[in-house]
Amino acid sequence: MSIRLGELTQRLGGQLVGDSDLAVSSVAPLDSASHTDISFFTNPKLLAQASLTGAAAIIVSPANSAKIEAGYHGARILTDNPYAYFARVAQLFAEQVAVAPTAGIHRTAVVDPSAIIAPSASIGPHVTIEAGAMIGDRCVVGSGAFIGRNARIGAGTRFYSHVVFHDGCQIGERGILHPGAVIGADGFGFAQDQGKWIKIPQTGAVRIGNDVEIGANTTVDRGALADTVIEDGVKLDNQIQIAHNCHIGAHTAMAGCVGVAGSAVIGKHCTFGGAAMVLGHLSIADNVHISSGSMVTRSIHEPGQYTGIFPLAKNADWEKSAAIVRNLGAMREKIRELEKTVKMLVEKNNEQS
Amino acid sequence: MSIRLGELTQRLGGQLVGDSDLAVSSVAPLDSASHTDISFFTNPKLLAQASLTGAAAIIVSPANSAKIEAGYHGARILTDNPYAYFARVAQLFAEQVAVAPTAGIHRTAVVDPSAIIAPSASIGPHVTIEAGAMIGDRCVVGSGAFIGRNARIGAGTRFYSHVVFHDGCQIGERGILHPGAVIGADGFGFAQDQGKWIKIPQTGAVRIGNDVEIGANTTVDRGALADTVIEDGVKLDNQIQIAHNCHIGAHTAMAGCVGVAGSAVIGKHCTFGGAAMVLGHLSIADNVHISSGSMVTRSIHEPGQYTGIFPLAKNADWEKSAAIVRNLGAMREKIRELEKTVKMLVEKNNEQS
Amino acid sequence: MSIRLGELTQRLGGQLVGDSDLAVSSVAPLDSASHTDISFFTNPKLLAQASLTGAAAIIVSPANSAKIEAGYHGARILTDNPYAYFARVAQLFAEQVAVAPTAGIHRTAVVDPSAIIAPSASIGPHVTIEAGAMIGDRCVVGSGAFIGRNARIGAGTRFYSHVVFHDGCQIGERGILHPGAVIGADGFGFAQDQGKWIKIPQTGAVRIGNDVEIGANTTVDRGALADTVIEDGVKLDNQIQIAHNCHIGAHTAMAGCVGVAGSAVIGKHCTFGGAAMVLGHLSIADNVHISSGSMVTRSIHEPGQYTGIFPLAKNADWEKSAAIVRNLGAMREKIRELEKTVKMLVEKNNEQS
Repeated sequence: MSIRLGELTQRLGGQLVGDSDLAVSSVAPLDSASHTDISFFTNPKLLAQASLTGAAAIIVSPANSAKIEAGYHGARILTDNPYAYFARVAQLFAEQVAVAPTAGIHRTAVVDPSAIIAPSASIGPHVTIEAGAMIGDRCVVGSGAFIGRNARIGAGTRFYSHVVFHDGCQIGERGILHPGAVIGADGFGFAQDQGKWIKIPQTGAVRIGNDVEIGANTTVDRGALADTVIEDGVKLDNQIQIAHNCHIGAHTAMAGCVGVAGSAVIGKHCTFGGAAMVLGHLSIADNVHISSGSMVTRSIHEPGQYTGIFPLAKNADWEKSAAIVRNLGAMREKIRELEKTVKMLVEKNNEQS
Repeated sequence: MSIRLGELTQRLGGQLVGDSDLAVSSVAPLDSASHTDISFFTNPKLLAQASLTGAAAIIVSPANSAKIEAGYHGARILTDNPYAYFARVAQLFAEQVAVAPTAGIHRTAVVDPSAIIAPSASIGPHVTIEAGAMIGDRCVVGSGAFIGRNARIGAGTRFYSHVVFHDGCQIGERGILHPGAVIGADGFGFAQDQGKWIKIPQTGAVRIGNDVEIGANTTVDRGALADTVIEDGVKLDNQIQIAHNCHIGAHTAMAGCVGVAGSAVIGKHCTFGGAAMVLGHLSIADNVHISSGSMVTRSIHEPGQYTGIFPLAKNADWEKSAAIVRNLGAMREKIRELEKTVKMLVEKNNEQS
Repeated sequence: MSIRLGELTQRLGGQLVGDSDLAVSSVAPLDSASHTDISFFTNPKLLAQASLTGAAAIIVSPANSAKIEAGYHGARILTDNPYAYFARVAQLFAEQVAVAPTAGIHRTAVVDPSAIIAPSASIGPHVTIEAGAMIGDRCVVGSGAFIGRNARIGAGTRFYSHVVFHDGCQIGERGILHPGAVIGADGFGFAQDQGKWIKIPQTGAVRIGNDVEIGANTTVDRGALADTVIEDGVKLDNQIQIAHNCHIGAHTAMAGCVGVAGSAVIGKHCTFGGAAMVLGHLSIADNVHISSGSMVTRSIHEPGQYTGIFPLAKNADWEKSAAIVRNLGAMREKIRELEKTVKMLVEKNNEQS
């Protein structure tokens, strides 16, 4: 379960400065790393930590390598993106200790005979798979998960326990759905008729690309007529709600508790802080970043960071600010009155002089 | 799977203008409808789409019918509420293609012998039903759902996968509970004693009326002593939290991520935008509409639309606004100073002239 | 199922004023209590209710006892914390009517032979327990729950249906996890590389202390390298998201829909109102109270109540306030202009006089 640095750079690239036979067996931050750990350096504020670290090796950019070598005399791997390199090293170690799921269908799973399950897939206890579903190579379906009619799961995708993936929905390869995620429940669509709500059948589905990760208890609703779409590489954290007919562009990431209302179209490479919200039918450009807790109430056409939260204060101070906010109209009126009076005074003053 | 227009109007009402033998087989919006589709027109901005649509028929109000007939020469169904009519047509088509669940209890379900299950009900794989529960005619209980002791499920109600419906709770007819909805978990009630929390047993239940829909991963807690109540026709979207002893009036609808704190009493025909929040023990009148992301901190006695969100801005602009909001007290003080000084100047000026 | 008041005070303390043979069989608020109920009095506003109550006995503080005895002539139990006493009485009654879960492993549960299950534990239908897990005495594991490899569950802890408790996580004694809670899913950690997200394996776990309650559909993520920690006595309501590497201090309570971003360190005895949010890597002192809907964007070092929400208003009024908030910079500029002009006028005025 250890890897020689020479093997690491052979597999992941980067330029090794140091002993290629030196072996590391785990990753750790600078301040807790021991002589069997590999660490990384990106933050100039941690220069002192780099000097003191016990790490066998540090992943570092060529530019920063010069900075640390005064204090740090261990091995270095030079690469332009040390944090991404560190992530890949960590993945290597994680793969080595991962318990490989057993291929095959657990005896307690209920699988419709017409479903097509790759022999290399692992279907866990208490799973239900309905007619016509297709489960790709090396998929792992955790205990109690439900896969509806004609759903399609791409190769290497993993569903943890209790994932619900409804009829007709599809996901690409290498996806990860965490426990309790619900994909393809009905969108929230009703017509009003004399004070009552008439349900609009939700006959679209959910189409999810490759390399998508969806967090625990996150929900993505099926479309009303057309599909809800999540493009390649999207990462959704826990407790997120994506309403019907949304379209989330590739490589966009959303932190926990985000909500996106129906038919919103979100660009590629966007990020959303926790609990950010997007109203329905809006359009958000590529590379837009929404701060945590902010409510997007209009379409955004320009890349950049957007925020809208009431600043936190001691409660007594907040009460004062909030009271004034409620009466900002009156304050504006006072300023207008002042401006008029002052203008008049200035004019008189000019006349007099 | 197609319906003649004559049959449609016979079943759903409305006045047909056009060939009663013309058949339609699905619903679609104006811009994507083909000659086998029926569409609807309510939004005057879509007049051009109505002229260009390929739809075999359009559902339209008598008032709007005149507007579209210049450009559109297909069949029309005239009705006062085209969108609700459209919803009902869509329901007809959806029923036709729906896969009827098999009546009976799946061999893997664990059902207490004292539970009473209607023979027409469908109990899915891996379901658990405890003692004394009653499941009505034509109910569908999805895979892995849990129904506690003495719970009662009215006729035609559907629970999707992993719904949890705790002991003593009840729901009326034609309800829909989406995957992962949890009804009747303990309310969040504690007494404090020397810095520790002492649990207050939650011995009430949840009572839900007819025609209620509850979204995926939404939670409705049981009452502390009395019941939590959800009246007829209420529609709750995904990821909503309804705390103990709330009372939600008939035909109120809440969008995703809404939270309602304990003992709040909400009127009939209200709507709540996504992520709106209501504090505990408040009372909200009928026909109140709360905007998305708004926090209700006091009771509301008048119908109308209410909002409270910090406007979104570019982050740099928000930082300026937020800094001023923090110091609104100082700004108000400056205005007072100005008012005093200006008043003094005006008086002097008057003396001088 | 009834208890004599003498037995009550023997078991729970307090000073009885009245007949020790009088029996009560349930708890109720003053206004609905009957002659078999015991109630409590803490709120001076309910003095009239105390006079009219049908309760057989009232739990009351010595100080308040004098106030109620003019109008109320039933039995009293005097104690310094009547509400906590009431909670304990309610617990006694609840225990009496509770249906004791059957010890043993349900025939449909799938339990790895290497898992160690206490004989007094109750493992429900459709449960999955993986290799090396340890389930303590008198634990109750509800239907469909999942317990991962080497997880440890302390004595007397209860998991309701569909709880997911991942590999390597641990919880102490007397815990309660409500349906759909997910403990130990991967934290949301990615490195960015040329516009794509590279997953950082989450190899820490979740460590939970004694007497912790976690609400329905709440999620607590496993740590990236170190563990996520929840100390003794913490109470989390429904739909809460706790991100990786958070540390929640003992006896802190969070209401529904709260979100805490990664690596936040929260003190002991804090409270969080519903939908409050905390950004990542912040530190919050002991005894801090965050109001509902408030976003914590900086570390808090002083105990106290903190708030940050935009005040609710009628929508038309809000639109005005929001428009001004957007332009507070311009308003501040106007005030500065006024101050300059007025200062100039005052100077001229002084010259002239």
